[in-house]
Amino acid sequence: MNLTETDRLFPVEPLVRDIARSLYDSVSGLPIISPHGHCDPSWFAENKRFPNPAELFVIPDHYVFRMLTSQGVAMTDLGIPRADGGATETDPRKIWQRFADNFYLFRGTPSAMWLDHSFEHVFGLNVPLSSETAPDYYDHIDAKLAEPEFLPRALFERFNIEALATTEGALDDLKWHRQIRESGWQGRVVTTYRPDAVVDPEFEGFAANVAQLGEMTQEDSQSWQGYLNAHRKRRAYFKSFGATASDHGHPSARTENLSQSDAAALFAKALHGQCSAEEADCFRGHMLTEMARMSLEDGLTLQIHPGSRRNHNANVFAQHGRDMGFDIPGPTNYVDALKPMLDAVGIEPGLTIILFTLDETSYGRELAPMAGAYPALKLGPPWWFFDSYEGIKKFREATTETCGFYNTVGFNDDTRAFCSIPARHDVARRSDCAYLAQLVATGRLREAEAFEVAHDLTYGLAKAAYQL
Amino acid sequence: MNLTETDRLFPVEPLVRDIARSLYDSVSGLPIISPHGHCDPSWFAENKRFPNPAELFVIPDHYVFRMLTSQGVAMTDLGIPRADGGATETDPRKIWQRFADNFYLFRGTPSAMWLDHSFEHVFGLNVPLSSETAPDYYDHIDAKLAEPEFLPRALFERFNIEALATTEGALDDLKWHRQIRESGWQGRVVTTYRPDAVVDPEFEGFAANVAQLGEMTQEDSQSWQGYLNAHRKRRAYFKSFGATASDHGHPSARTENLSQSDAAALFAKALHGQCSAEEADCFRGHMLTEMARMSLEDGLTLQIHPGSRRNHNANVFAQHGRDMGFDIPGPTNYVDALKPMLDAVGIEPGLTIILFTLDETSYGRELAPMAGAYPALKLGPPWWFFDSYEGIKKFREATTETCGFYNTVGFNDDTRAFCSIPARHDVARRSDCAYLAQLVATGRLREAEAFEVAHDLTYGLAKAAYQL
Amino acid sequence: MNLTETDRLFPVEPLVRDIARSLYDSVSGLPIISPHGHCDPSWFAENKRFPNPAELFVIPDHYVFRMLTSQGVAMTDLGIPRADGGATETDPRKIWQRFADNFYLFRGTPSAMWLDHSFEHVFGLNVPLSSETAPDYYDHIDAKLAEPEFLPRALFERFNIEALATTEGALDDLKWHRQIRESGWQGRVVTTYRPDAVVDPEFEGFAANVAQLGEMTQEDSQSWQGYLNAHRKRRAYFKSFGATASDHGHPSARTENLSQSDAAALFAKALHGQCSAEEADCFRGHMLTEMARMSLEDGLTLQIHPGSRRNHNANVFAQHGRDMGFDIPGPTNYVDALKPMLDAVGIEPGLTIILFTLDETSYGRELAPMAGAYPALKLGPPWWFFDSYEGIKKFREATTETCGFYNTVGFNDDTRAFCSIPARHDVARRSDCAYLAQLVATGRLREAEAFEVAHDLTYGLAKAAYQL
Repeated sequence: MNLTETDRLFPVEPLVRDIARSLYDSVSGLPIISPHGHCDPSWFAENKRFPNPAELFVIPDHYVFRMLTSQGVAMTDLGIPRADGGATETDPRKIWQRFADNFYLFRGTPSAMWLDHSFEHVFGLNVPLSSETAPDYYDHIDAKLAEPEFLPRALFERFNIEALATTEGALDDLKWHRQIRESGWQGRVVTTYRPDAVVDPEFEGFAANVAQLGEMTQEDSQSWQGYLNAHRKRRAYFKSFGATASDHGHPSARTENLSQSDAAALFAKALHGQCSAEEADCFRGHMLTEMARMSLEDGLTLQIHPGSRRNHNANVFAQHGRDMGFDIPGPTNYVDALKPMLDAVGIEPGLTIILFTLDETSYGRELAPMAGAYPALKLGPPWWFFDSYEGIKKFREATTETCGFYNTVGFNDDTRAFCSIPARHDVARRSDCAYLAQLVATGRLREAEAFEVAHDLTYGLAKAAYQL
Repeated sequence: MNLTETDRLFPVEPLVRDIARSLYDSVSGLPIISPHGHCDPSWFAENKRFPNPAELFVIPDHYVFRMLTSQGVAMTDLGIPRADGGATETDPRKIWQRFADNFYLFRGTPSAMWLDHSFEHVFGLNVPLSSETAPDYYDHIDAKLAEPEFLPRALFERFNIEALATTEGALDDLKWHRQIRESGWQGRVVTTYRPDAVVDPEFEGFAANVAQLGEMTQEDSQSWQGYLNAHRKRRAYFKSFGATASDHGHPSARTENLSQSDAAALFAKALHGQCSAEEADCFRGHMLTEMARMSLEDGLTLQIHPGSRRNHNANVFAQHGRDMGFDIPGPTNYVDALKPMLDAVGIEPGLTIILFTLDETSYGRELAPMAGAYPALKLGPPWWFFDSYEGIKKFREATTETCGFYNTVGFNDDTRAFCSIPARHDVARRSDCAYLAQLVATGRLREAEAFEVAHDLTYGLAKAAYQL
Repeated sequence: MNLTETDRLFPVEPLVRDIARSLYDSVSGLPIISPHGHCDPSWFAENKRFPNPAELFVIPDHYVFRMLTSQGVAMTDLGIPRADGGATETDPRKIWQRFADNFYLFRGTPSAMWLDHSFEHVFGLNVPLSSETAPDYYDHIDAKLAEPEFLPRALFERFNIEALATTEGALDDLKWHRQIRESGWQGRVVTTYRPDAVVDPEFEGFAANVAQLGEMTQEDSQSWQGYLNAHRKRRAYFKSFGATASDHGHPSARTENLSQSDAAALFAKALHGQCSAEEADCFRGHMLTEMARMSLEDGLTLQIHPGSRRNHNANVFAQHGRDMGFDIPGPTNYVDALKPMLDAVGIEPGLTIILFTLDETSYGRELAPMAGAYPALKLGPPWWFFDSYEGIKKFREATTETCGFYNTVGFNDDTRAFCSIPARHDVARRSDCAYLAQLVATGRLREAEAFEVAHDLTYGLAKAAYQL
């Protein structure tokens, strides 16, 4: 049997299914462009085997362990590290068994589809994971991971990845990227400039981070102009390791366009830890506009990922730290929040700002109307909880009529689960083809156009928007 | 002819319809679990006949009379009681005729489906209700209501209700529940603890209510600790009449976790009628956290029904009082509002908090991400205006991918229209099976899994979440 | 070949498609009721030929040129006038070619469907517009525009328009409407009272506008009572040119119901330019309630179009002025905002207030619950960005279950693109029939009822709500 069906996600009505299948067949073999994600560059630098099934599939993936947590499985029983370094489960077989015992919880979720796809297409498994099959699964995957064909670089090539962007903080030395380059391996792995730690006055160690930024760039990062110059130099450094984009994860989409003297004064307050919450937010907002101005200079595409209330539960944050599945979206306003930045740079030619959202209500109400007018704006694909069949369907249905396809930028997987990359891109390709087939079958798009659009959504738009 | 079609609500494509029908056939005969609603316990205590068709179907059901009101039918012409005791229509035949004359207004609404289902399956009618058929309808139903098979207990058994929860205020003496128990009748009708009148400083007669709470429990309810103890005793009393849950209807989802001294001080202000609107809201919010703490002690499941702007029109409220169809939903924030309570008890094992919403935008953005992480949280089914085919479809499509099925709790009918109970559960079962069939047909769920999930959604999850 | 398919927008499943087609066939020949829009009455007064294809299809239609702008085409290259009167492209053939070169951007948008429909059904073209076919297109359309059958009145009749409402400001002398009447032409073109310039203290020249209002009506418009009387006289004047409705485009749905003395004081401040932004908003809100009271006197239907952040980009506004495609929707609250007006007049018999929205989240959460209770409220059709297949589908799916069909008012095209009127009404009829067919096929509506509802949605409800 197959774990995943050949025609999955396609519309059921035979006529529409045929169109969807034809469209999909025309793009399923295209290389993967992965322009935004969180893969660890050390995988490709060192090319060492992945340790075991639990460390590959369970422990690093908050999509997976949060579902188990929600039904009462203790995070420590899944081997999730504790902030105080205290004891957690260390036996990967036990972790794997607990995961398998609760695998039914994922019914109907994209995680189940990604996992099944990986099990089947990466590891050649063809019985469903369950309490009973868990030990065999473990043995099988663990054995495969020891084979050369399952080393990171081999998988990268087998996954047919044409380009993959990782994300590094502004203070990262990019040593893994250097090592990849110096290894002579031909896989294209590029970095992305993520300066949260040096633009957010509320980030842990902000002042020290800015000081380090100055040291790394030989700029006086205590002065406003030196600080901006330091960013310019780091961006150039990141560009030298292939970066084509910056990325910004703020609590809201707020932007500001302060006068340079006001910005300098606020920066000084931030350095001295004297910003109120409101002032810190204002500074972050202003820095988005500064980053957009730098993008006009150096050509980096600017990505904004706003709207997550990070570390929602105080106890989980205290016990386990960041990125533990307790980041919860909230309402996000774009129409008012982006105006200062858009008044500054929104109609500049040659600038690409990609907007993401965790608030689906903004798709049709704010994002598509703005992307359908501003030359600088493009819409990123459905993100995080919405990177799924229903999420993609809603995105297309809510945005296409207002901003068309060509103000969107194709798919990105945004993942730290390496083996799920082919699965995720496959879901996106299928979901887009399902949507296009529906348009064709209802006379909203000509079939020949649909083939062109399918290719663009799969390949062309991502390459163009990210200059890859 | 039939008033309701055999395959209604199933997807139309034959392949998917077959799957949906098979799933539905596997659950359509299961007993009804009705864990939350507003049936009158006196029906089952006294077991008297329902007075007439108008008093059964029109006068008590704000879903029904609000639609007629919206098109200009005067509430007094429908027999809706006036606050001043003034004259209203008293002839049930005239009320029934007005209802029938306007029955076309309900086209496409769940009310029409519930009513048709009741007419057909409870009363054996098989011509549509219209101006012309109204008199025959009246005679037929009125005659049936005189038969022993149409007394409340007989209908309860015929409806195959395994358990039904009513909702009573904290000050209710539960005499009807006592009478049911003492009658020896075996039908399981349990109560639910609803303390709005004694936790909301803005409730009419709050101080007097709290005083009465003290008298009923022999606690000094003027002191903070005595007040909390009085709650504990009332909860225990409700438990002795089968209660497994409390229920809370607040304007917003706001929670607070004040220090005990701050809470005590605020309580004192509330008793003296000195709370500002903000302080009253704060107190209500804190009481949710206190109730959650008591649930940790006594095991009651906690239900939160927030977000209705009650009594929206001043004239209607003045003329007819509460629950007159003029309760309008508004935007409801959960991610910020629930944080204080969740920081206090959100990851405690053994606690079940069921969240409802009237703001569908929160399903995917806030509720599913929270329920998919917090052990204490579960999602209640679509509520009130959204207890419908489209409402259920939207709920499943927006939540399943993020929190799966097992962080939801099955269906409840939340009704005061007794005869609609089978109709409502039937709509829910059909809608869920339609959704599951779509997942199966598009390769998102295996068929064997779908049968298990259908059973859980119909029966298992409600029993577990409400401990019934 | 056809540019638009015969069965477009109908569901694909054969059984449902057959029902949809039957329903559509029963309404496709009905006359067009166009109760709200922005056609230029001078077209019908003067009955001169439309100048050329670019001035007919591109330059006046912000739906069209905003999409080109969003992909970097300069507005001046499309002949969009500059605020400073500076040079823009003057060759309509070049503009047309640029439009055609970028026509692929509209794939999947309603604009593409409207344009193709106009090309095919108005001008008899049957090859798709493209870079290659652009010159032939231009020649063909330009030649047609010179024929008598393509003059505005001839098209009006050919489009089978029974009644068309334009929109004029309160200070308009209605000379074109007078000229239409005096011409003896039988086409029914009526005006609509749009008083934004004299009710919004922030409108350019508010005080002067109010002074002019006084002069036109021989009322002392500097006094509050005189100002209200001036409105009454202008409304009567508009009624004498067929007006059956007023229209109000406010930033939000805020209403107020001030005491007359407070309103008079605020009006005096407004006249002296001393209102804060908050006070200006309060005054606009109060004027909605005053307009509703006048509607009780003179019977005009009241339309509210709230929620657009007009002129979002400062540069575009400075360079090109208003209505340039940079109006972006934002979140709009109705439940709190409308309460003051609804407390004042919401349950008055004989009043019709039609609510529009650019915030689809309000359909199910606020608008349908309110329209399903208040006699005075009706829901307008999907507006602006949401006047589309998906928009109509979402509207029906979100509102029908709560307020039925009879609290909605049929379709309006709201367009300044004359040739798109048949296309837009055709899309609405198809979309509604597609929705009704789905209800029939899933047992939610009887087929005979669906035919009645289809007729009402196409014709009866608009005539009734607008008294046309």
